[in-house]
Amino acid sequence: MAIVGEKGAMRQWSRSQRQCGRRIALVPTMGFLHEGHLSLVSEAKQRAEKVVVSIYVNPGQFAPGEDLDVYPRDFDGDVEKLKPLGVDIIFNPRDLYVRDSPEKNGAGHETWIRVENLEKPLCGGSRPLFFRGVATVVSKLLNIVEPDVVVFGKKDYQQWRVLSRMVRDLDFGVEVVGCKLVREADGLAMSSRNVRLTATERKNALAIFHSLKRAEELVRSGETDSSVLIEQAVSAISHAGGRVDYASIVDQETLQSVDKVASPSVFAIAAWFGSVRLLDNVELPNS
Amino acid sequence: MAIVGEKGAMRQWSRSQRQCGRRIALVPTMGFLHEGHLSLVSEAKQRAEKVVVSIYVNPGQFAPGEDLDVYPRDFDGDVEKLKPLGVDIIFNPRDLYVRDSPEKNGAGHETWIRVENLEKPLCGGSRPLFFRGVATVVSKLLNIVEPDVVVFGKKDYQQWRVLSRMVRDLDFGVEVVGCKLVREADGLAMSSRNVRLTATERKNALAIFHSLKRAEELVRSGETDSSVLIEQAVSAISHAGGRVDYASIVDQETLQSVDKVASPSVFAIAAWFGSVRLLDNVELPNS
Repeated sequence: MAIVGEKGAMRQWSRSQRQCGRRIALVPTMGFLHEGHLSLVSEAKQRAEKVVVSIYVNPGQFAPGEDLDVYPRDFDGDVEKLKPLGVDIIFNPRDLYVRDSPEKNGAGHETWIRVENLEKPLCGGSRPLFFRGVATVVSKLLNIVEPDVVVFGKKDYQQWRVLSRMVRDLDFGVEVVGCKLVREADGLAMSSRNVRLTATERKNALAIFHSLKRAEELVRSGETDSSVLIEQAVSAISHAGGRVDYASIVDQETLQSVDKVASPSVFAIAAWFGSVRLLDNVELPNS
Repeated sequence: MAIVGEKGAMRQWSRSQRQCGRRIALVPTMGFLHEGHLSLVSEAKQRAEKVVVSIYVNPGQFAPGEDLDVYPRDFDGDVEKLKPLGVDIIFNPRDLYVRDSPEKNGAGHETWIRVENLEKPLCGGSRPLFFRGVATVVSKLLNIVEPDVVVFGKKDYQQWRVLSRMVRDLDFGVEVVGCKLVREADGLAMSSRNVRLTATERKNALAIFHSLKRAEELVRSGETDSSVLIEQAVSAISHAGGRVDYASIVDQETLQSVDKVASPSVFAIAAWFGSVRLLDNVELPNS
């Protein structure tokens, strides 16, 4: 397993692999890897002969005042976790953006990709430039690594939809794979940010998962009214001391709110416990 | 010379060429080819073993009310012009955008690339979404054709700068080449739109070129005040019956206006003659 930091060296490796007819899979991450990430790597191994995992905390998707500075990092630990999985390359660039400087005279990075509809609902409400940063950095990674397949987790459901749409709309020559959300034994959605929860917050945060499970059961027993499903979730999470950013039932494809659970939809929640914002979602059964 | 209309077939051809180690150059055009385009093809031939010319009038860069419907087209004539030049593929897609439709439920094309600073001055003033459309379609073409080198004309100076910046910022693995503007025998900048000028407009439109030449001479003889240079041009073009959209002396890299011609700068003009908007520019000598 090699660690590559330079864009040029990364692309050169990929091109030489493809020249030999080998398929390459890319798993983009921000590091501090957990079982969720490792499941993406396993999926990547199934789909290509060569696997590249990128580890890069993308400043382009953090707004001022968000948690860029305290985002957890453990590069050496990540390397240890990836070693046994048969990963070929860890792409770990120091910085992917051209920085502005007085000498450059306003010629810093200024190109941004907008997925104009899908970026707006859900996380887009409280993080209006978040998906602009995500789409831009993933397009850079696709252009540098030139993979045949790219693997994302559906835990970041909107991100997966945004990036799938971007790949389709900009005709990137890559297959997009979305993998199932992975949970801790007790049900909490795995996230690099979970380590920033106190023990109490960690316990209380389970309310998100439980309320989603409850919604799933209610749908199975015939409830289709989104507002009823949302209300029980917001109430349960608030009762557990969480602050709901959003709790929305949306169409799986367009991410537009639905009043009734009739077509394929997803119940997506973002909620704060202490200083940590957590995401979770379930795809609801069609009634 | 083959004519390819499907994205998949186009990419497959490129990949098989690159698999064999051959370099590919792309010349993106909107067709109705003139000597300016053909000079780009010659440059492409110098730089790669295989040359793809795309012919696609990109609806994404025309605003409602602009001249999309009357933009000149002559596909058969273009084919005849390209045949003797040793072009390998004409990529002529019917439509590059996924269209929205009631069945698709709002899942039409929605991804756009913004080069946020360079898109604003010059043509960006009267055509605020023009470069958004240009950048987006060129990124699509780069992703479909996957060339090693892409060739643009510097007649569309801002477009060349915008696309160079996009390629740098998004890490496209392609070399960008800008080619010198080509003029008619009398000096008029070659443009597909020139055929839409009446004989009188055609003659009057030469005022653009003459005023740029005059500016160049004034700079050579020591004039560095942008406002003086601009004034003589606006006055000459207006006097010839043209309507100036902009006449700006800007830094070659940032496209920001400069008061004095001191650093590398370019004098760019857009002016209407009749119903036709013409562009022209000269890179000014450093004084």
